[in-house]
Amino acid sequence: MQYCISKENILNGKNKILIEDKEHKGTVRVAGWLAGDMEAVFGAKPSICTIQSAKADEGLCDGTMPVIVTSVDTGDLADKLEKDGVADLSNLRKKRESYIFKLVNMHACEERNGVNTALAVIGSDKRGTIYGMLHLSELLGVSPFIDWLDVKPVHRDEMTFDETVNMESKEPSVRYRGFFINDEWPAFGNWCNKRFGGFNAKCYEHVFELLLRLKGNYMWPAMWSAIFPQDGPDLLNAELADELGVVMGMSHHEPCLRQGEEYKYLRGPESIYGDAWDFRKNKEGITRFWEDGLKRGGHLENVITVGMRGEFDSTILGKEATLGDNIDLIRDVLKTQNELIRKYVNSDIEKVPRMIALYKEVEAFYYGDDTYKGLQGDPELDGVILMLCDDNFGNLRTVPKESERDHKGGYGMYYHMDYHGWPISYEWVNSSYLPKVWEQMSAAYEFGIRDLWIVNVGDIFTTEYPLSFFLELAYDYEKWGATNLNAPSEYTKKFVRTQFPTLSAEDAKSTEELLTGYSHIASNRRPEAMNVDVYDSVWYGESEELIDECDRYMSLAKKLYKECDDLSSYPFFELVYYPLMANLNVQKMWLYTGQNHALASIDAADAAAEYARKVSECMAFDRDLIDKLHTIHDGMWYGMGMSEHIGFNFWNEEECSFPVIHSAMRPDKPRIVTCIPGTDRHTEGGFWTGMTLVLDAFLRPDTSVGKIRLYSIGEGEAWYKISGDTDKLQVSVTEGKLKCGEQTEIEICLADGSRKNGTDMTQVSEGAGSGCAEYVLYVETPSGKTTIRVPVNTEDYSSLKKGTYVWCGLDRKGLSSEHYPVRTAEKCAPAGFISIEAGHYTDKQDVADGTFTEIEAYGRTLSGMKAYPLVKRFTPGVDAPFLEYDVYMEDAGEYTVRAYVTPANPPYKDNLLRFGLSVGSKDMSDPEIVLVDTVAKSFGVGDDNYAWKQGVLDNIHICHADRTFAKGVNSLKIYACDPGFVLQKLVIYKKDKAPADSYLGPKETYRIC
Amino acid sequence: MQYCISKENILNGKNKILIEDKEHKGTVRVAGWLAGDMEAVFGAKPSICTIQSAKADEGLCDGTMPVIVTSVDTGDLADKLEKDGVADLSNLRKKRESYIFKLVNMHACEERNGVNTALAVIGSDKRGTIYGMLHLSELLGVSPFIDWLDVKPVHRDEMTFDETVNMESKEPSVRYRGFFINDEWPAFGNWCNKRFGGFNAKCYEHVFELLLRLKGNYMWPAMWSAIFPQDGPDLLNAELADELGVVMGMSHHEPCLRQGEEYKYLRGPESIYGDAWDFRKNKEGITRFWEDGLKRGGHLENVITVGMRGEFDSTILGKEATLGDNIDLIRDVLKTQNELIRKYVNSDIEKVPRMIALYKEVEAFYYGDDTYKGLQGDPELDGVILMLCDDNFGNLRTVPKESERDHKGGYGMYYHMDYHGWPISYEWVNSSYLPKVWEQMSAAYEFGIRDLWIVNVGDIFTTEYPLSFFLELAYDYEKWGATNLNAPSEYTKKFVRTQFPTLSAEDAKSTEELLTGYSHIASNRRPEAMNVDVYDSVWYGESEELIDECDRYMSLAKKLYKECDDLSSYPFFELVYYPLMANLNVQKMWLYTGQNHALASIDAADAAAEYARKVSECMAFDRDLIDKLHTIHDGMWYGMGMSEHIGFNFWNEEECSFPVIHSAMRPDKPRIVTCIPGTDRHTEGGFWTGMTLVLDAFLRPDTSVGKIRLYSIGEGEAWYKISGDTDKLQVSVTEGKLKCGEQTEIEICLADGSRKNGTDMTQVSEGAGSGCAEYVLYVETPSGKTTIRVPVNTEDYSSLKKGTYVWCGLDRKGLSSEHYPVRTAEKCAPAGFISIEAGHYTDKQDVADGTFTEIEAYGRTLSGMKAYPLVKRFTPGVDAPFLEYDVYMEDAGEYTVRAYVTPANPPYKDNLLRFGLSVGSKDMSDPEIVLVDTVAKSFGVGDDNYAWKQGVLDNIHICHADRTFAKGVNSLKIYACDPGFVLQKLVIYKKDKAPADSYLGPKETYRIC
Repeated sequence: MQYCISKENILNGKNKILIEDKEHKGTVRVAGWLAGDMEAVFGAKPSICTIQSAKADEGLCDGTMPVIVTSVDTGDLADKLEKDGVADLSNLRKKRESYIFKLVNMHACEERNGVNTALAVIGSDKRGTIYGMLHLSELLGVSPFIDWLDVKPVHRDEMTFDETVNMESKEPSVRYRGFFINDEWPAFGNWCNKRFGGFNAKCYEHVFELLLRLKGNYMWPAMWSAIFPQDGPDLLNAELADELGVVMGMSHHEPCLRQGEEYKYLRGPESIYGDAWDFRKNKEGITRFWEDGLKRGGHLENVITVGMRGEFDSTILGKEATLGDNIDLIRDVLKTQNELIRKYVNSDIEKVPRMIALYKEVEAFYYGDDTYKGLQGDPELDGVILMLCDDNFGNLRTVPKESERDHKGGYGMYYHMDYHGWPISYEWVNSSYLPKVWEQMSAAYEFGIRDLWIVNVGDIFTTEYPLSFFLELAYDYEKWGATNLNAPSEYTKKFVRTQFPTLSAEDAKSTEELLTGYSHIASNRRPEAMNVDVYDSVWYGESEELIDECDRYMSLAKKLYKECDDLSSYPFFELVYYPLMANLNVQKMWLYTGQNHALASIDAADAAAEYARKVSECMAFDRDLIDKLHTIHDGMWYGMGMSEHIGFNFWNEEECSFPVIHSAMRPDKPRIVTCIPGTDRHTEGGFWTGMTLVLDAFLRPDTSVGKIRLYSIGEGEAWYKISGDTDKLQVSVTEGKLKCGEQTEIEICLADGSRKNGTDMTQVSEGAGSGCAEYVLYVETPSGKTTIRVPVNTEDYSSLKKGTYVWCGLDRKGLSSEHYPVRTAEKCAPAGFISIEAGHYTDKQDVADGTFTEIEAYGRTLSGMKAYPLVKRFTPGVDAPFLEYDVYMEDAGEYTVRAYVTPANPPYKDNLLRFGLSVGSKDMSDPEIVLVDTVAKSFGVGDDNYAWKQGVLDNIHICHADRTFAKGVNSLKIYACDPGFVLQKLVIYKKDKAPADSYLGPKETYRIC
Repeated sequence: MQYCISKENILNGKNKILIEDKEHKGTVRVAGWLAGDMEAVFGAKPSICTIQSAKADEGLCDGTMPVIVTSVDTGDLADKLEKDGVADLSNLRKKRESYIFKLVNMHACEERNGVNTALAVIGSDKRGTIYGMLHLSELLGVSPFIDWLDVKPVHRDEMTFDETVNMESKEPSVRYRGFFINDEWPAFGNWCNKRFGGFNAKCYEHVFELLLRLKGNYMWPAMWSAIFPQDGPDLLNAELADELGVVMGMSHHEPCLRQGEEYKYLRGPESIYGDAWDFRKNKEGITRFWEDGLKRGGHLENVITVGMRGEFDSTILGKEATLGDNIDLIRDVLKTQNELIRKYVNSDIEKVPRMIALYKEVEAFYYGDDTYKGLQGDPELDGVILMLCDDNFGNLRTVPKESERDHKGGYGMYYHMDYHGWPISYEWVNSSYLPKVWEQMSAAYEFGIRDLWIVNVGDIFTTEYPLSFFLELAYDYEKWGATNLNAPSEYTKKFVRTQFPTLSAEDAKSTEELLTGYSHIASNRRPEAMNVDVYDSVWYGESEELIDECDRYMSLAKKLYKECDDLSSYPFFELVYYPLMANLNVQKMWLYTGQNHALASIDAADAAAEYARKVSECMAFDRDLIDKLHTIHDGMWYGMGMSEHIGFNFWNEEECSFPVIHSAMRPDKPRIVTCIPGTDRHTEGGFWTGMTLVLDAFLRPDTSVGKIRLYSIGEGEAWYKISGDTDKLQVSVTEGKLKCGEQTEIEICLADGSRKNGTDMTQVSEGAGSGCAEYVLYVETPSGKTTIRVPVNTEDYSSLKKGTYVWCGLDRKGLSSEHYPVRTAEKCAPAGFISIEAGHYTDKQDVADGTFTEIEAYGRTLSGMKAYPLVKRFTPGVDAPFLEYDVYMEDAGEYTVRAYVTPANPPYKDNLLRFGLSVGSKDMSDPEIVLVDTVAKSFGVGDDNYAWKQGVLDNIHICHADRTFAKGVNSLKIYACDPGFVLQKLVIYKKDKAPADSYLGPKETYRIC
């Protein structure tokens, strides 16, 4: 059977959209969207008619191939089709929000009216039918952003389907799936006012369409200044939502369909609602306020918020109130609210979707304490969705224990891709990262949080990419959930293909890389929280590397944007170019500022000034980019770039600071500073300074090139001359002159040609097998003679197993730090360390019901290792899977193991988030397993918890354990324990000899390959 | 009897200088200086002739009034005069370096040869006669710097003396008194080479003249590149010294009249001296090296250095050597050296002045330890001066205990007014301060260090002021020593009068103030050690006040220099203008840099830029000033300004850094920052920042004006409006506009007129007697509304004794910090504290043999309190004098007492430097006395001792004791204990609530007056 849609068919009236006479109003409206989509694809718009009208006007000619749209809960079309044997609806009738999508041969039908074949979209209910129609749009190559972002589909002359398209959709995985427009000033608010004249139905029509096309069904409206049930105007917003099948909720602190702003306007000494947001002192007024809210909107489809918080999202009772006072209050509130709901919405209250948010302090009221029973298990909460939440930074807070998961109302999750609050807000531009969203929301689902997922998307704009993933995951968990380890990358591929169908395969791949890349960098540090002190300006070259990475992405984005065809150009700007450039330009600006400070601090005045210039360029670029956003496409997005986003000193923009530029002054005489890039070690070689540099690159057996850098910082031209073991070390340039302000990088290789191609040649002719050779270079300049010691690792590691990490520190035998009087302004350089990427384990051991799994591209620097099943608490040494890292040590002794783990919060009230750790020489049978806490016992989430603050800003938790290592190969094992633990990185160093601090930590060190 | 010198007399041959035929050659040479001095004063030069020649050529006419010069140890003139009854020499004959200065009537003399009256200068010996002649110069108004600095005397037509000038001089207090030219490159070296062609006798003639005119008799020559006994050329330098009675020593590590540089040139595989500065491996060569040194110069007057250090002033044996090895070595060295001295200098070795320096590690060799007896008491050291030393920063190290003071050779002191070494050198310009020199060297004398005082004066130039005081003190301890508490100021007055006789009384007073002022600031922080982090840029306004102080001195110096007459102009430049401007300009440059950084950090871009401009001006001024020094007076001082002196990062100039300038960028919108000057508290008043400011000025009952400061930091014009309790608080300006970059300071007074004139009106009408009133002001600006709380102290303190310090902290009753949510970027402001200047004690208690004495202008901020007798160790509570401070507390509780004391080193090997402390309510009978250590038990002096480093750089030691205070008036007593303790300041605060850090500490708080 063939089914063809084409411009010709449409113009001939053959491809009409045929609708059940009694169809839901909203379905009909969405049929209009579908007609529009078809026009966008084929260039002609099919008409929409009801069966009745079609019959009446003889609109259906022979050989017609309409799209037949019907819901099983309306009229009798579906029944007839079933009766005629065209479709079996028995399964569909048991489901919600589902649809059958099927090519049907109508010849057998009683009333075929000339219809030949048809594409039947039969929904289980209003939303089922809507999703079914939008499924067709999807098949036609229409982006869900066709309306919201004006993403145009590829024109087609015709499109033919066969029976392979037939399907019966699944029920959506999560019951209520939606987003929350929040923190909407200045961006969304200005945009909305200019474009639509207010937060009205003209605006919400677009928002609802976006939601439905993304397979969501639920939302919370903007609420900073807006009143959704009044701004339509009147009830228009709410009625439109209801018509379209969008279930409305309100934010966690807006009970009984009343917006927070409303009370502010209605209260007063003369008000019928009284003049205090106080259920104790003004019970009557408040009850009436709620009552009128339910009267106004209770007839529409809602998830009604119950419970109560203070005004402006604050605590409800004062500091003096006890836990008991608070619990009693909420209990009374719930009782009153439930009574009102029974009276004004539905006497069978179980049928009324209700939600209470266990947000911030309310969590404590729910659980109670030893002396005061909390709300948990209270009959007033029967059937109420318990809405849990993340920590505002995308990490789940407490989740239901196994015994709690059967709560009748189920659970919800309030997640954030935008946040306004302590310690630092992020509202400007998307900084959410798919692997993190996937990892956390999959866990939420596994913990039984399946009834409501709502995500705060701020202004919506620029979060489309992670938002669409979030809703897709909620809609089809089976496809995208925990077991699909490639979900984020697979989704990104799909996303790019959908939005940019005309990109070449190569450009599409690049675009995926850009989306992943910018959002990874932004999630490592959000733009508002970025400042000059975040990334270390010198150590491990992390700042310089990140600058390079930003440059690479930005150049690529520029290039692709320039090359985009007319179809892709505007969507590319919205979805890729703007969020990427906005994010990375701010990152770079701060990184440049760091370089400026670092160079000024070594008096490299000209080099510092060059970076100062770059900072200014970034500042200008930022403004130009936002101007462009505000004017492109006839100013469609005017307002959306208005949020402050540079240098937050408080949690919000108040008193935010632009970068402070440092200017050094040139010394009077020619002077050259010699530096070892990637370290803070530098000297001008003055004899008395006692400074010696160490080029430790060749301690790694796989390094082929080491670098030194010279800055000419003084007035006049300065000469330099490199001497020393130049027979052993090949120096790219041995002498030269640098004008004032110039710099040069000199490359050092081993002269015997070993390691030439970066291959792992551990043998240099000199000192081979002795473990270490040591050479020396001198850099003579007008200001001194710098000694650079160049130790070369010549150890024979051939007996070591592949993947073994090898200690290559400065304190290797014969190279004790005594030989290296590296006196850097009274601070010694570290003797050495081992740094391990978690994904590079030497071995791993699964157990019957437990395995460590690598989450790719998840960590700040590489991947993350997480134990499955996600909800299981393991006992290390008993039933826990483990990772094994082979570590070769030069010396036995006390070492510190530092673990970098995802900043997850403890899953349960016991506040435990641990992993197991054991260390022992390879042949040791049962080394002791210690449990390591990734957070302190006193760890808390939220305002004024400084450990949490550090974790969410840095996107990492760091914890330590001191262990004894043997000489030779040790086995370091990491055991799964509490759910939520994700290992990203390990660093091992001699106790009290930590490597230099930096944001991302030391880069991975050498392992046998 | 009248004695008249006049131009006429000189021209008529009446004022000849008549010398004993057999007089010392050196005396004759100095008579030439005297003749020159007389010419400088009277415009005619008297001739010098011997008695014999005078007789022969009939040069003496009737009525002649010559200056008769003779030494008792030459010829027979002195004997004849005594015989003739003209002078009684019996006393003089018993003394050294003394003279009789007397008008004599020659009529009774046997051979009067026409001489009528004469001015007889009869010396006990060569130096006595020389000092006698120079005494006449002094009386004629000739500066000791007439030669060295070209300070010209006031011209006189005649000068008449009567018998009131007659005197017999005292013996100098200290046997050997002199200075050490050191660290002479680049300054002295370049100067000397250009002016004299080397370190030769042409140069040393001036140096010796300076020494003798300053009443010194001893010196160590430059030794970095020079070889004194060869550069004369040949022995000329040494012979000239001997001729003039200058006793030569060499530095502490140059034994047997051999300069350190010599061995470097003479050593070698073929050398007769061998090729190792190693007494163990090359005993023969080293012995011969010393032998030849003694042969060369042993016949001249020397203090011969004995002992041995390593090359370049380093340790003699390697790290592996034990204390015993070292002691044995030095013992052997001494034995050899003494034998050589017996052989080549004087077999009666007791008659040969010898010195061994107990410098750095040698100190340990001297004392030994429990297992190995040190050199103390060794017969080889009999009669050898034990030279002790300061810590290179003007603080004595260990001194002789009472039992040790009878060492036969006596003791010496090596003091520093210039230093090249760790932690930071100071060589550029004088930074020594008279009160400190006086306090320390008086103590040295009292501890029995009276045989040798040598001071390192670097290049000499600019240290003339403290150097001349040092030598004056050594010459006449009775006059200037410990009992003369006004010695420094008295000497400064004398110094100014001598150098600038033509200044008006007022200008002379100002000049004294300038000398004291600049050297005080420089000694608080030496220029090389100054950097942007020293003084706090905001707290207590210490930086702004110091800028003002520098400005005041610099303006005054400029004015006086401009007004100087021809006579004073050049000396004023050398002695006042140059060292003052050089010092203070560098201080200011760093203070400006601090203001620049502080303002940039609050985004006050324009205000920061204004300070950046000032920094640049200082940099330019520094260069111009040195250029001026190098060209003034025909380039006489070319070279003397060459030392680097800005931003030392190491102990010497290597890699030194100029200031780094910070530039903020203007925010896009009008924004105003409101600050409380003298604190780091500032805000733009954003509601969400949670910041409240506190203007705590009126917590002091004697404050009449409080200030707030506004900076307009954003683009465009910004308005401000001040409201609140403006009926209670009079605000100088309540509204206005500030252009971008502008700033304004607003004054707040109490509106009821109380405290109008800064008088102590503790009563304001509102809340009088209740302890405290509290008002509030609001500063509204485009960026927010700042709340400023203004607490006003209304307590009635009339019952408190005068001088009582009163707790006026923010945590006074009704003003607990809870009422002040001062959230400054997560750091709370201090609740309050009491700060006490040591000199402002309420009472003090002397004991029979003990009293606390105030040393004025001695402390960093005011005076110092030191116990007399200087050498006594007291037992607090038994025989110790004490100081008493009455302190009124609002609350009883645990407080920390922080003491700021002079960075003295413990006087004895037991490493103790303590004081006693007791605290108790006024009526308590016997509060516990605790002993407080001003330094840790592990305190050590010298390289790599970080506590010592901090102390000498900051010129303070800070120590703490926690004590319980009662509510109401407490008596805090400070008891004398170990010698060396000088109390400068006390700060008391609630435990763990320290006031904000700053360099000088919090300023003195309110006391009843």
